[in-house]
Amino acid sequence: MSYFAIGVDLGGTNLRIAAIDDSGKQLETITTSTEVKRGRDSVIESMCRDICLLKAKYDGAYKFVGTGIGIPGIIDMESGFLRESPNLPGWSDFPVQSEIEKRLHSRVFLENDANVAALGELWLGAARDINSMAMLTLGTGVGGGIIMRRRIWHGMTGMAGELGHVTIDPQGEPCGCGNRGCLEQYASATAVKRMALEAIRAGKAPDLARAMDANPEFSAKVVFQAAMQGDSAAKAIFERVGNALGIALAGSINALNLPMYVIGGGVSGAWEAFAPTMMKVVQERCFVYKATTTEGRGSTRTLITRALLGGDAGLIGAAFVAIQAHHAQLEL
Amino acid sequence: MSYFAIGVDLGGTNLRIAAIDDSGKQLETITTSTEVKRGRDSVIESMCRDICLLKAKYDGAYKFVGTGIGIPGIIDMESGFLRESPNLPGWSDFPVQSEIEKRLHSRVFLENDANVAALGELWLGAARDINSMAMLTLGTGVGGGIIMRRRIWHGMTGMAGELGHVTIDPQGEPCGCGNRGCLEQYASATAVKRMALEAIRAGKAPDLARAMDANPEFSAKVVFQAAMQGDSAAKAIFERVGNALGIALAGSINALNLPMYVIGGGVSGAWEAFAPTMMKVVQERCFVYKATTTEGRGSTRTLITRALLGGDAGLIGAAFVAIQAHHAQLEL
Repeated sequence: MSYFAIGVDLGGTNLRIAAIDDSGKQLETITTSTEVKRGRDSVIESMCRDICLLKAKYDGAYKFVGTGIGIPGIIDMESGFLRESPNLPGWSDFPVQSEIEKRLHSRVFLENDANVAALGELWLGAARDINSMAMLTLGTGVGGGIIMRRRIWHGMTGMAGELGHVTIDPQGEPCGCGNRGCLEQYASATAVKRMALEAIRAGKAPDLARAMDANPEFSAKVVFQAAMQGDSAAKAIFERVGNALGIALAGSINALNLPMYVIGGGVSGAWEAFAPTMMKVVQERCFVYKATTTEGRGSTRTLITRALLGGDAGLIGAAFVAIQAHHAQLEL
Repeated sequence: MSYFAIGVDLGGTNLRIAAIDDSGKQLETITTSTEVKRGRDSVIESMCRDICLLKAKYDGAYKFVGTGIGIPGIIDMESGFLRESPNLPGWSDFPVQSEIEKRLHSRVFLENDANVAALGELWLGAARDINSMAMLTLGTGVGGGIIMRRRIWHGMTGMAGELGHVTIDPQGEPCGCGNRGCLEQYASATAVKRMALEAIRAGKAPDLARAMDANPEFSAKVVFQAAMQGDSAAKAIFERVGNALGIALAGSINALNLPMYVIGGGVSGAWEAFAPTMMKVVQERCFVYKATTTEGRGSTRTLITRALLGGDAGLIGAAFVAIQAHHAQLEL
């Protein structure tokens, strides 16, 4: 009998829950909004209700193996507590995993959202044929996930993969994490918007100023559209994005020599605007990249590529965590 | 019967060869100088002669399992070629491993010198009870080694662990690797000497200027002694060393969340001069470090510590590579 797992992408805005079979087929996906304002217990309640619904519907035709949940925040793997999660106020230092397990009466795997996105791309996306890779998710913040030999690299306490908080500029922008000049301050949607507002305030971006006046929802996307229309201020902003990504990737390639680096998240939609600078900077700064991309070394090329699964990567990866755990049990 | 391996530390200046048993005991160590000037073949010839000597002497009383060789340079693991090695001119793009195996008629493992140093510290040094760690070796350059689950993390082509070429300052000093502002430009013995000469030339370091005039072999060690005697220019140089190490460690801890980071190599002798700044910078910049060092989290503390094996780390780690390979065979 085939089996299936439930994958959950518990974001600060949207809550998505999918039943996914062992071949990667999404049997059914429920999308709702995360009613953060109604409080933690209410969100957990409604999430568990939907998980049970899907579980009951497909259990029987498939064997159920567990639930994986991707959460934006720092998870202490040992205790199953959420330690920090700016997007889920009131959830920190709360035993999320055991609380959900209690309700579901089945195995629950809590994971950082960027880690499951990386695993999703490994299972069904850009890194399908790869065993080890890293992914940067460029969203409101910059998340990171490292996969080593097909498993999420958790590190000592499950906090590994925070590639968004690698220092790009020691004297740079202060970051919410306490550091300055983190990658997140140059390559997230928030950073793109901040850099645009700075340029507007400095009087250096008249077209962006007009776009902002015309559009109350002025966002990174608007800046990208301006860049694609040739606006030089907008183009310069995405060159800064590419420069920061290039410096971060160069360091990570020198440190880890992974075969593939995947760039995903909303801002990766602006690939055309930042990728040329990013690739140029990696080529200039990274001798391990250069050593692996010289002619005649086809089988050992370091690849830097766009994510393929879009917003589904986390959902898919979360389900795959439960499927991998089932496989590991079978191997015992 | 106990067994033993040969560990070799093939440096640009010294060549050390040791017979080490499976408990870590150094049965015998031969130290000679690496006659780089006499050419590659002559060095290989005399190294192989000494290896054979030790092998013949202890074979019988112990079972011989192989030879591990730590080399300063980039090794292509697939081919066993040395790809780049500034300290061993004429060795690059040469099949070092197969050439040595041909002479020894036994298994040879070629490894980067900083990788075997890290493995040595894991086996018998600062990281004895740890399974995963990273080590920075602060010497003429800055080497790095990452150990994941008791094995050297090689990455795709064996080039992983180059933590000395992580960018600290994007606009900083040009580095021999092609990048700018690499850790190596602020935390190596070469960098300490360069920063001292800069300070002397700028007229900011009268005591160091006097020390240089008095000592034709002006080195990082002299700068350290000046710092320990309270010279403010020398102290400022080691604060820069500590600052750069702190930034690099913060990034690596956020990315990998390893339980231990070990600092070795000659410059680590100046620990008292750079460590206070290094620890302060990690504490300020690294939220994963902070999260793992808050009170009551004793079992999951991120440790940053000095290496314990000094110049023997590479030798010991190289032998352990051969011993690990023997273990892996036994497991099959």
